Amino acid sequence: MRIENRIIELGYTLPESSPAGGLYTPVRRVGNVLYVSGQIPWLDGEVKYSGKVGNERNIEYAQEAARLCILNMLAAVKNAIGDLDKIKQIVKLTVMVSSETGFDKQHIVANGASQLLIDIFGPDGCAARSAIGVNQLPLNVTVEIEGIIEVEE
Amino acid sequence: MRIENRIIELGYTLPESSPAGGLYTPVRRVGNVLYVSGQIPWLDGEVKYSGKVGNERNIEYAQEAARLCILNMLAAVKNAIGDLDKIKQIVKLTVMVSSETGFDKQHIVANGASQLLIDIFGPDGCAARSAIGVNQLPLNVTVEIEGIIEVEE
Amino acid sequence: MRIENRIIELGYTLPESSPAGGLYTPVRRVGNVLYVSGQIPWLDGEVKYSGKVGNERNIEYAQEAARLCILNMLAAVKNAIGDLDKIKQIVKLTVMVSSETGFDKQHIVANGASQLLIDIFGPDGCAARSAIGVNQLPLNVTVEIEGIIEVEE
Repeated sequence: MRIENRIIELGYTLPESSPAGGLYTPVRRVGNVLYVSGQIPWLDGEVKYSGKVGNERNIEYAQEAARLCILNMLAAVKNAIGDLDKIKQIVKLTVMVSSETGFDKQHIVANGASQLLIDIFGPDGCAARSAIGVNQLPLNVTVEIEGIIEVEE
Repeated sequence: MRIENRIIELGYTLPESSPAGGLYTPVRRVGNVLYVSGQIPWLDGEVKYSGKVGNERNIEYAQEAARLCILNMLAAVKNAIGDLDKIKQIVKLTVMVSSETGFDKQHIVANGASQLLIDIFGPDGCAARSAIGVNQLPLNVTVEIEGIIEVEE
Repeated sequence: MRIENRIIELGYTLPESSPAGGLYTPVRRVGNVLYVSGQIPWLDGEVKYSGKVGNERNIEYAQEAARLCILNMLAAVKNAIGDLDKIKQIVKLTVMVSSETGFDKQHIVANGASQLLIDIFGPDGCAARSAIGVNQLPLNVTVEIEGIIEVEE
């Protein structure tokens, strides 16, 4: 429970993981590698952060959205493997930011996600990363983040 | 031939795999993991589904495009490993939907791909998934799908 | 130094690798697989290729940007593992092209990256690949490329 306690200590709460079901699996495992489906800023059954970054939404709003995506990612992983202490490293994040054309600070938005993972996991949370802008995300969410995570045997 | 028979039983035909050649490889293998290049809705030497979802194209059209991407993915895998029965699980799909700004049902489009894989492979076909919108895909195709697949030793 | 000599022979120079630091890691390793963060056309501390392909920038410009992304990728890998001769194969490239809506030749832009890797590594450089358009990249760069690379034990 070391990692979950660290999350609480940082002032965050792990959301309830969305029920699996549906047409995709939140987390697929190959060997010691977990592939986590694209996470959106969803909480208590609804989208919490929607709209595009630029004039409509600012960077701080999008960083909050990115942090919620990460908490949902960790909730999905906990649901899949039982204990977040089994995580060895966050390998890769892909951060997709719903962007008005002309907004080019997707990397700063992504820092919201990256900083939280570093706060939780230390250097093991400092993943390889891509940050990109897209013109539209599902359910008009502001940010979607997928991840690859290495766990213990 | 179990999986290929299942595809026929579902009313689909595996397309001829595009000749490799060119500047990329359709399927690259690392250990037991296959990385499949982005597949487009291409058939008999031409693009079958083009244009953006929103006003120009509707969800049903895009779902058909997504299914053709999946059939092309399986044709590429068959070409690479000889027998689709060697597939253990579909690990990850990334579904990119050419979207008019304002269209936010990329996940519903992606369901076209996901449902077909589940129909073919059962629970092993229920992959981790990201669905995103983009403003433009190569050759103006409606959908592009890349995948990661685990196979037997 | 075989691969580095090959790069010089082709007329290119490996850039200085950006200092790690910051909120992401340029290269993360799991087993023999390297995940390389999204590389941008950055040189000597500044963006060298910016703007969108279409009317603003043409294909040749974007292909040059793509080649610089690849050189930055190899510089990051050298920094991580010491010697590019340890590379077994380029497994996967994702080429994201900042695109005006209506420009649909992202695969031709991506060929700039792919051809360079094939020139350097031969058939082992002919990766699986996805090429997509997006409406905006960080720092308004023209191309961003991420990669997965297999190395020797």
